[in-house]
Amino acid sequence: MDQPIAATNHQIRLARRPVGLPVRADWSFTDEPVAPPEEGGVLVKTLALSLDPAMRGWMNEGKSYIAPVGIGEVMRAGGIGAVVVSTSAKFAVGDRVTGSLGVQEYARFGAGQLAKAALAKIDLRVGTLTQWLNVLGMPGMTAYFGLMDVGQPKAGETIVVSGAAGAVGQTVGQLAKIKGCRAVGIAGGPAKCEWVVKELGFDACIDYKAGPVKDGLKANCPNGVDVYFDNVGGEILDTVLTRINRKARIVICGAISQYNNTDAVKGPANYLSLLVNRARMEGIVVFDYTDRFGPVIAELAGYLREGRMKSREDVVSGIETFPETLLRLFRGENFGKLVLQVAQA
Amino acid sequence: MDQPIAATNHQIRLARRPVGLPVRADWSFTDEPVAPPEEGGVLVKTLALSLDPAMRGWMNEGKSYIAPVGIGEVMRAGGIGAVVVSTSAKFAVGDRVTGSLGVQEYARFGAGQLAKAALAKIDLRVGTLTQWLNVLGMPGMTAYFGLMDVGQPKAGETIVVSGAAGAVGQTVGQLAKIKGCRAVGIAGGPAKCEWVVKELGFDACIDYKAGPVKDGLKANCPNGVDVYFDNVGGEILDTVLTRINRKARIVICGAISQYNNTDAVKGPANYLSLLVNRARMEGIVVFDYTDRFGPVIAELAGYLREGRMKSREDVVSGIETFPETLLRLFRGENFGKLVLQVAQA
Repeated sequence: MDQPIAATNHQIRLARRPVGLPVRADWSFTDEPVAPPEEGGVLVKTLALSLDPAMRGWMNEGKSYIAPVGIGEVMRAGGIGAVVVSTSAKFAVGDRVTGSLGVQEYARFGAGQLAKAALAKIDLRVGTLTQWLNVLGMPGMTAYFGLMDVGQPKAGETIVVSGAAGAVGQTVGQLAKIKGCRAVGIAGGPAKCEWVVKELGFDACIDYKAGPVKDGLKANCPNGVDVYFDNVGGEILDTVLTRINRKARIVICGAISQYNNTDAVKGPANYLSLLVNRARMEGIVVFDYTDRFGPVIAELAGYLREGRMKSREDVVSGIETFPETLLRLFRGENFGKLVLQVAQA
Repeated sequence: MDQPIAATNHQIRLARRPVGLPVRADWSFTDEPVAPPEEGGVLVKTLALSLDPAMRGWMNEGKSYIAPVGIGEVMRAGGIGAVVVSTSAKFAVGDRVTGSLGVQEYARFGAGQLAKAALAKIDLRVGTLTQWLNVLGMPGMTAYFGLMDVGQPKAGETIVVSGAAGAVGQTVGQLAKIKGCRAVGIAGGPAKCEWVVKELGFDACIDYKAGPVKDGLKANCPNGVDVYFDNVGGEILDTVLTRINRKARIVICGAISQYNNTDAVKGPANYLSLLVNRARMEGIVVFDYTDRFGPVIAELAGYLREGRMKSREDVVSGIETFPETLLRLFRGENFGKLVLQVAQA
C-alpha cells in the first residue's frame, strides 16, 4: 500500500501533573514523523477531538475509573478521524471512525490496540461529525445511561440537570422531556438559559450567576426534585440536596466545580438529606455501558432526525490551541459541546 | 373500671432548642396527676425507654422525616410499658406494649392516638424487655432493613459498620455474618472492639481511637468494602469512601459525629469515589418498613433463641437521669443499646 502521507504528527503530551488549573508549562508539544501502522493495524488522521471535563481527572495521579495519563504520554482524547492507512480487515481507507485518538494529528494502532482504543466506524448520514462527538458520542451515552439507568425517571417527575447547556446536560434535559418529565436546567448566564428553554424545550433554566439557585428551584420545581443529574458538584449540589423529594435519585456524573481545587473537594454538607428523604446518590461511568451503545445511538439519532432533539457544539480550530481551549470548560465559556477541530474532513 | 393509681406523672419536656450538645436548661421537669384515658384509649405505665442518637435531630427545628418535638412538649421517646388502664378492645390491663411513650412515667392515649403512637403488644417469651428495645425493636429493624434492603449484601462480600458496639451496629454485623458475609466493625476502645469480635463473632473490629481507620481497613478488608453501614458520618465516612469497591453500597443510617455540630455538617469530601466506583449512597428510615416488622422480628427472635445472635443493652435507671444519660450516646460512653429504666416491670 502506498504511503499517502509524508507528514509530521504534531502531538500534545502531558509534561507534568498540574496543580489547580492546567497551565501551558504542564504540556509539551512534540513532532514525530508519521509512520505506517504495524500489520493488521490502521493509521487514522484526526479530524476533531472531544474536550471533556473528565480530562482534568485523567491528568491526576491515583486510582480512578481509568489509569492516569502518564507523564510524557500523548494526552488522552476521544475523537473522530479518517482512516488513511489500513491493513485491518475491519477498516478501509476513507472510513470515518471514533475512538481514543489522543491529542495528535495522526493516531496509529496495531491490530491488538484497536479494541482498547474502542475504534469504531461511524456513519455521517446518521449524524454530523460533531454530533458524533456529542449526542451520538460519549456525552450522549453518558446522558442516556446516567438518566435512564441510574436516575430512573418516571413520567411526570421533575428532573434537574446542571451544566444544562453543556455536552451531557443538553441531552439529559431533552431526553427527560421526551420521556414525559419536567426538565429544569441550571446554567450560567442568560444566553445559555434562553437557549436551553427556547431551543431545547426545557421547562425552565436557572441562571446560577443571576441569583440564588435555591430561589430558582423553589420557583421552577414546585413539586420538588425527583432526579438531579449533577455535572458540577460544590454549592449547587448542596443547594439541590435541600429540595429533593422522598426517594429522589442524584446521579453523580461529574463535579467540574471541584476538578481544579488545590485544596480538598467540597463534600456535600447536606448529604443527610439522603437519609431524611430515603434518597440515593450514585455514580455513573459511561464505559460500563459500551455493550448497549448501538441501540441507544439509534434511538438518539432518531430523535435528531425527527427534530425532537437538537444539539449544539462549540468548535474551536487548531490543535495548538488545545491547552487554552480546554480551560474554556472550567471557566464555563463553552456554549454546547466543546470540540477541537484538528483537520478538515 | 377502678382507678389503679393515684399517682403523679413525672415528665421531661423540651424547654428550648439546644445549640450543640443539649444541656440541662434545655429541659423542663413537670409533674401532672395521672388521668384516666378517654373512652377507647389506654393508660400505659412506662417501664423502659429507648435512648437513640436520632433524638438529637428531633430537638431541632426544620423539615425532617418526622416533625420536631415542639417547645414545651414531652420529649418523644419509644419505650416499653405496661397497660394499667384500658377501655380499648385491643389491649388488656397487664399487657406489655411498645410504642411512642415519651419521656414520662405514664402515657395516655385516646382511641384515635393508638395507631400514631404505634402501640403494639409484645411477648416477653420471645425476647427480654430490653431486647424488645434493641434487636426486636427499632434498632434491630433499622439494622435489618438498612442492611438487607438498602445494602443488599451478597454472600462473600465485606460489610463494614461503624458504631459496631451500638444498638444498630451490633445487629448489622451479626446479621451480615449470618448471611455469609465478612463483617468488620468500627468502634471506640479495646473493650468494645474485643466484645464485637469475641462475643458477637465479627471478623474484625477497628478501634478508631487507637490509630488511623484507613490502616485498619487496609488490614482487615483485603478485598475492599462492598457495603458500608454508616452510623457516624464525619471523618470515618470519608475514610471508608477511599476503600469501597466497584458498585459498593453505602447505607446512610445516621451521623452521630455531626448531630451536635454548631457549625455546618462535614460533607463527605471523598464523595466522588461514588462516581469512580459506580457506587451508591442511600438513606434508610425505619418507619418506612413497619408493614414488614412482623416476620423480621420472628427471624431475629429465632437467631436469639438459637444463640446465633446476641445482644447487649446498657441500662441506666431513673427518669430524672435522662438529660445526662442521653449525652452518653454522643460521648460514645454507652456500650450496647442505651436503655433508660423508668420503673420495674
